[in-house]
Amino acid sequence: MATVIDGKAISQTIRSQIANEVRLLSQKYGKVPGLAVVAVGITKDSPRYVEMKRKACTELGIKCLVVELPEQVSEAEVINQVHDLNANPHVHGILIQLPLPKHINEENVLTEISLEKDVDGFHSLNIGKLAMKGREPLRLPCTPKAFLELLERSGVGIKGKRAVVVGRSNIVGLPASLVLLKADATVTIVHSHTSQLENIIREADIVIAAAGQPMMIKGSWIKPGAAVIDFGNNAVDDPTKKSGYRLVGDVDFEEASKIAGWITPVPGGVGPMTITMLLKYTVEGAKRYIEKNN
Amino acid sequence: MATVIDGKAISQTIRSQIANEVRLLSQKYGKVPGLAVVAVGITKDSPRYVEMKRKACTELGIKCLVVELPEQVSEAEVINQVHDLNANPHVHGILIQLPLPKHINEENVLTEISLEKDVDGFHSLNIGKLAMKGREPLRLPCTPKAFLELLERSGVGIKGKRAVVVGRSNIVGLPASLVLLKADATVTIVHSHTSQLENIIREADIVIAAAGQPMMIKGSWIKPGAAVIDFGNNAVDDPTKKSGYRLVGDVDFEEASKIAGWITPVPGGVGPMTITMLLKYTVEGAKRYIEKNN
Repeated sequence: MATVIDGKAISQTIRSQIANEVRLLSQKYGKVPGLAVVAVGITKDSPRYVEMKRKACTELGIKCLVVELPEQVSEAEVINQVHDLNANPHVHGILIQLPLPKHINEENVLTEISLEKDVDGFHSLNIGKLAMKGREPLRLPCTPKAFLELLERSGVGIKGKRAVVVGRSNIVGLPASLVLLKADATVTIVHSHTSQLENIIREADIVIAAAGQPMMIKGSWIKPGAAVIDFGNNAVDDPTKKSGYRLVGDVDFEEASKIAGWITPVPGGVGPMTITMLLKYTVEGAKRYIEKNN
Repeated sequence: MATVIDGKAISQTIRSQIANEVRLLSQKYGKVPGLAVVAVGITKDSPRYVEMKRKACTELGIKCLVVELPEQVSEAEVINQVHDLNANPHVHGILIQLPLPKHINEENVLTEISLEKDVDGFHSLNIGKLAMKGREPLRLPCTPKAFLELLERSGVGIKGKRAVVVGRSNIVGLPASLVLLKADATVTIVHSHTSQLENIIREADIVIAAAGQPMMIKGSWIKPGAAVIDFGNNAVDDPTKKSGYRLVGDVDFEEASKIAGWITPVPGGVGPMTITMLLKYTVEGAKRYIEKNN
């Protein structure tokens, strides 16, 4: 049976360290770190994601400013909002809830976030530095930072391992691939145009599942002893639940946990860790800003 | 036997089109496109690379400004030089001959090139846009652009194919991987920390060899019918030659050409095509600049 990597417990440990940092900043400077979350329109999952961030901020003493904009808002108005937040001294991290509605160009908006406040790490300049050897991004994007922390704390090495990243989204798959490559893994990126997916995944010592397909990766696709990181966060109907749904990953957890060496559960795996990294970056940014401007 | 992709002949076709463009610009505006090549210190291969570029420019009527700086020059002086070239209206493309001496930070220099004149396409912002879905770089870096053109003109499709990139340099391996991924290949990047290299390469429909190791990829590693693109450009001793050396690729051409479906030779494969793309970008840049400022 696989070791289940408890992202929730590891998150709690890190969050209590962050809460300490927040207290110290407050005692020393009387200042509170602030995170702005910009949500445009309402998608299926966005209220849940925004609420998780708001709640996590509150627990740690971080001010969370949620900016909700209607679906029909223009790109220019979103960019204006970003400029206001860039200039706001009480905001140290800016997160744009993705995806944005189709009429708004994601890159145009993300590029306007000041690099210092880009706590997601998705600015093109940051990604370019992440991709190239000998260049250092200001920070790793939250998603790969989350699983790197989990692997490290679980004693799973990356160097020289075969890693397969399932999905190539800007939010998870692509930055995960770049980070694994920089950590000296042999990286394969598979996606909707890949044939014989199972055979490729079966060779992986490390599987990063980020396809957004409920339980698509079966237990029999996993190499015995592999580390399986599941970024899937899919709501599936479940009439036995009060909410009417339950969350499942991209991996069939029940099957895979019998074969893998390590596995992250959904919920309680990379989800809380990704938010924890966001909070960590926000507080680090606040610290840099407050110490510089005090 | 493999179809040998004649990069030299394909280059000639494209270069005569570029020469035409240069003539038109000269007739219409009395202006000549200019490429600046900055070479710091002398490495084993750099004089040969610089000379190839100078010769190619001259043949097409492009002005080539070679800036040779001594090995001991400071980073600040190189950056000053870049600023001068950015401001120079007769220069439409700036190429820094890589690698730079160790005391100079490559990124610090490349970041200073204005995006419009970055004909190599290695600016972090350009690479970040190349990496991310839905974002478009100003131009593809010359090296992947070169092999994309060769594959396309040879009728080799990329979508859904297994591609293996051998090497992860900033100049070839990394941008090649990103471009293949954007073209919907399933991409694996292998490097010095990869074990069982042969087995991975044997699964590739497309092999991009960019390891800088003379003839390291053997014929028996190639999947029958695969397309093999060889970026190797290694000088090996050869007393039968007047120069005392000959150029070989990273692939054992004699063996591999019996098994592959398509293969690029060394010399005469991607080498001339990469320079051709550089010339093409320079003339495109010149055209944009001249038409805007006339």
